[in-house]
Amino acid sequence: AVENRNGVETITRLLPSPEDASAAAASVGEFQPLPLGEAKLLAPVTPSKIVCIGRNYRDHAAELGNDVPREPLLFLKPPSSIIASGDQIEMPSLSQRVDYEGELGIVIGRRARHIGAAEDVRGYIRGYTIVNDVTARDLQKSDGQWSRAKGFDTFCPVGPLVTDEIDPFAGIRVQTHLNGELRQDGTTRDLIFPIDHLLRYITAAMTLMPGDLVATGTPAGVGPMQPGDTVSVTVEGIGTLLNRAERGSTASN
Amino acid sequence: AVENRNGVETITRLLPSPEDASAAAASVGEFQPLPLGEAKLLAPVTPSKIVCIGRNYRDHAAELGNDVPREPLLFLKPPSSIIASGDQIEMPSLSQRVDYEGELGIVIGRRARHIGAAEDVRGYIRGYTIVNDVTARDLQKSDGQWSRAKGFDTFCPVGPLVTDEIDPFAGIRVQTHLNGELRQDGTTRDLIFPIDHLLRYITAAMTLMPGDLVATGTPAGVGPMQPGDTVSVTVEGIGTLLNRAERGSTASN
Repeated sequence: AVENRNGVETITRLLPSPEDASAAAASVGEFQPLPLGEAKLLAPVTPSKIVCIGRNYRDHAAELGNDVPREPLLFLKPPSSIIASGDQIEMPSLSQRVDYEGELGIVIGRRARHIGAAEDVRGYIRGYTIVNDVTARDLQKSDGQWSRAKGFDTFCPVGPLVTDEIDPFAGIRVQTHLNGELRQDGTTRDLIFPIDHLLRYITAAMTLMPGDLVATGTPAGVGPMQPGDTVSVTVEGIGTLLNRAERGSTASN
Repeated sequence: AVENRNGVETITRLLPSPEDASAAAASVGEFQPLPLGEAKLLAPVTPSKIVCIGRNYRDHAAELGNDVPREPLLFLKPPSSIIASGDQIEMPSLSQRVDYEGELGIVIGRRARHIGAAEDVRGYIRGYTIVNDVTARDLQKSDGQWSRAKGFDTFCPVGPLVTDEIDPFAGIRVQTHLNGELRQDGTTRDLIFPIDHLLRYITAAMTLMPGDLVATGTPAGVGPMQPGDTVSVTVEGIGTLLNRAERGSTASN
């Protein structure tokens, strides 16, 4: 949670698990809040895998000329693509069109395999965050498989934090601004496959581990970024994930 | 490396890194070799990602009616799909056809990003292992994206060990047997995109981390497994990766 003290935003806690809560309380006397402006935020998750859902908003499927899928369309992004809020999205010289895709992210809290139809999926969810599923649109088409086009380094901005204080099941707003202009404006009420369906579908195939990240799909309004552009994804009740796009280097390092 | 002592196979070392070698040598007096038959082998890698190459042998591309790709065809398998040699491949009830695909695996030894044309890729390779890129062939077709069809739990048998004592650049044999019958018989000389090309291509997009696994593609002869079948993939100079296929459970656990 983020608190305002004397007009300065400070992070007072980073989702301690229930077991850690008493230890955290014991050491709270030593805790010195750091103004957010002085902190370098890291990505709030280090997932063993990132499972993404394609075409999960009707209007977005339509804008790219695709049918609405009959089942969730799964793909993976590699953990090496993760950057934090404030980090730079590096646009590879291999692509002529790199798009933003703002999304709600689910952070898994408990090992999940074959979640049953009668089970409450919320017991497996640690919290929610924001994801920008950056995509090299031209390579996505020419490669066929999306792993490379969506898997470049820096193509998975995540953050700025994880919260369990929102209820996306009731519908929350997902917005993306490019250089301050509103480009995407959706609500999780419009997900073709809602969160419980997604987690049951994914865990029928692959076990989700604590810390794993599920990106729930992007609403209409995706579009290209240019070097120097600032893209911000805002999810109601979480905050804003903000990144600048720049030309990437191809130096060996 | 695996050694034979009094007719019993024993593992004498598990690829200590150069820094660990002197520490390992210091404690060697306390080391009690364990007969391999008494050991439960774990998968020899815990990669942050598994990058696979599709259609990288001409005869395999042809057998599934596909063109030879102009560039390496990348896809990802999730780390949750890894099992060890001796573990059971669980065939999901969602699929009517689960295929074996025997492959040479590359284990990365050093962080690799934008490997240059003049660089020797061998400096980034820790060693080689064996991978079975198990695939739900029917779901691979119907899903379009391959992440689910190739990403089920148990769909990435890896092992039994990692060795740096072979030279796949010179050509080594990759064979798969189903219930003792030879089904795949290829050599890495026939890779459409050889190892150096693959690693340059992958690292132009995504950073490979130490321990990451690259599966180099499968030769012709892929085919379905039935419950109770035993599939073994043998790579010259490494050994044999052996797994039995069984019907998977769908219990929540």
